[in-house]
Amino acid sequence: MGGRIICVGLGPGDPDLMSVRADRLIRGAHHVAYFRKAGRPGRARTLVDGMIPETATEHAMEYPVTTEIPVDDPEYNRILAGFYDAWTDRLAEITTTEDVVVLCEGDPLFFGSFMHLQTRLEARGIPVSIVPGITGMSGCWTAAGRPMTWGDDVLTIVMATLPEDEILRHVRSADALVVMKIGRNLPKLRRALAQAGRLDDAVMVECGTMKDERVRPLTEVEGPVPYFSIVLLHGSGRRP
Amino acid sequence: MGGRIICVGLGPGDPDLMSVRADRLIRGAHHVAYFRKAGRPGRARTLVDGMIPETATEHAMEYPVTTEIPVDDPEYNRILAGFYDAWTDRLAEITTTEDVVVLCEGDPLFFGSFMHLQTRLEARGIPVSIVPGITGMSGCWTAAGRPMTWGDDVLTIVMATLPEDEILRHVRSADALVVMKIGRNLPKLRRALAQAGRLDDAVMVECGTMKDERVRPLTEVEGPVPYFSIVLLHGSGRRP
Repeated sequence: MGGRIICVGLGPGDPDLMSVRADRLIRGAHHVAYFRKAGRPGRARTLVDGMIPETATEHAMEYPVTTEIPVDDPEYNRILAGFYDAWTDRLAEITTTEDVVVLCEGDPLFFGSFMHLQTRLEARGIPVSIVPGITGMSGCWTAAGRPMTWGDDVLTIVMATLPEDEILRHVRSADALVVMKIGRNLPKLRRALAQAGRLDDAVMVECGTMKDERVRPLTEVEGPVPYFSIVLLHGSGRRP
Repeated sequence: MGGRIICVGLGPGDPDLMSVRADRLIRGAHHVAYFRKAGRPGRARTLVDGMIPETATEHAMEYPVTTEIPVDDPEYNRILAGFYDAWTDRLAEITTTEDVVVLCEGDPLFFGSFMHLQTRLEARGIPVSIVPGITGMSGCWTAAGRPMTWGDDVLTIVMATLPEDEILRHVRSADALVVMKIGRNLPKLRRALAQAGRLDDAVMVECGTMKDERVRPLTEVEGPVPYFSIVLLHGSGRRP
């Protein structure tokens, strides 16, 4: 009898916001795997500090490359594909006899790196279970403390890595907006919001639900922001 | 010293997917309030069966109207506004001495009814805390089992209650799409998806993470579906 791969969503950052199921699976795990940048403790692993049993085997899946090569360079894809293939082999090997719990920040099927393993594992017929988590964006709009969407509001989620005209088009057509992957794309995002006349409504949330949580109007933000910051435009639809 | 209002997100339907914090707050509550249709047990209340202490006082906030009057009739707004005003009074009264835990399916700030109490309570200076939850849509895309978004995919969330041409416009401009509030709007949604050439990609999820969970290609769906069904179009962005 083989084991299973169970990817558990860790939620937005506060361990208390993990699901009851995720908490139980992690505390009972024999094998725990997680992605991290080489030489760093890793955000997923840090989040579960004190929860992994001492008897469990940990598997740190360290990215061979993060920002050293542009994502549109074919070399980036080649290196990462090899990395995911190698970890697919390794996890497949462990699951011949035992379960593996794979940690994933936020919600695994929403921009989570696990998907690159999932598609490879499933292609080999290895069963994968997913435990959803509270998304990082949900942690951020909870930190901001106001309802994101009302009535029939349209909510669009865009990456600030997109070209400025595409961002602008989505700002114009959405009632409520979440912008992720900000970092050095902030000036471009600011221009798109200003052009759509919505810069004054934008809220910047850094580290939602974490100890460094910070919520400010975007107009008050100067200087660099973390890549994992989120900008919100709240909806204002129908309400009694 | 006054109490607090704490609105806890219950997640997508499976009690095991509630956050550790929500679980603890509900099991330790003295006052628990929840919305429901008059004469029904209520989905939020059913979800926490067996969790509320026997000594707790329950407050069923029963909607005075649900589908009997169209939402665009001014009378609908007038009746609901009175209902929210009255419960704001009642909760404000309890919090002069005690905490109240308000239950909310999914994630409170994402299309949750609690927002109508929140704005009224905050207008009176009564502090409100929100515990985020896993959204219903996240439960549904986990049930469907495939990654929703890759790379720089744009995800748009629309209500099927919108006019057909607006739905069509959003289907065309999004990479990944979530459609909520379907029910009798299904024929309209189907036409918009067909016109955009994406009908064959659409997945229908009913009761995601619940015991009646059902996942099918939309093309195989005949006859009526529950209002709380969700239709998904998966993204297909960049991947190594």
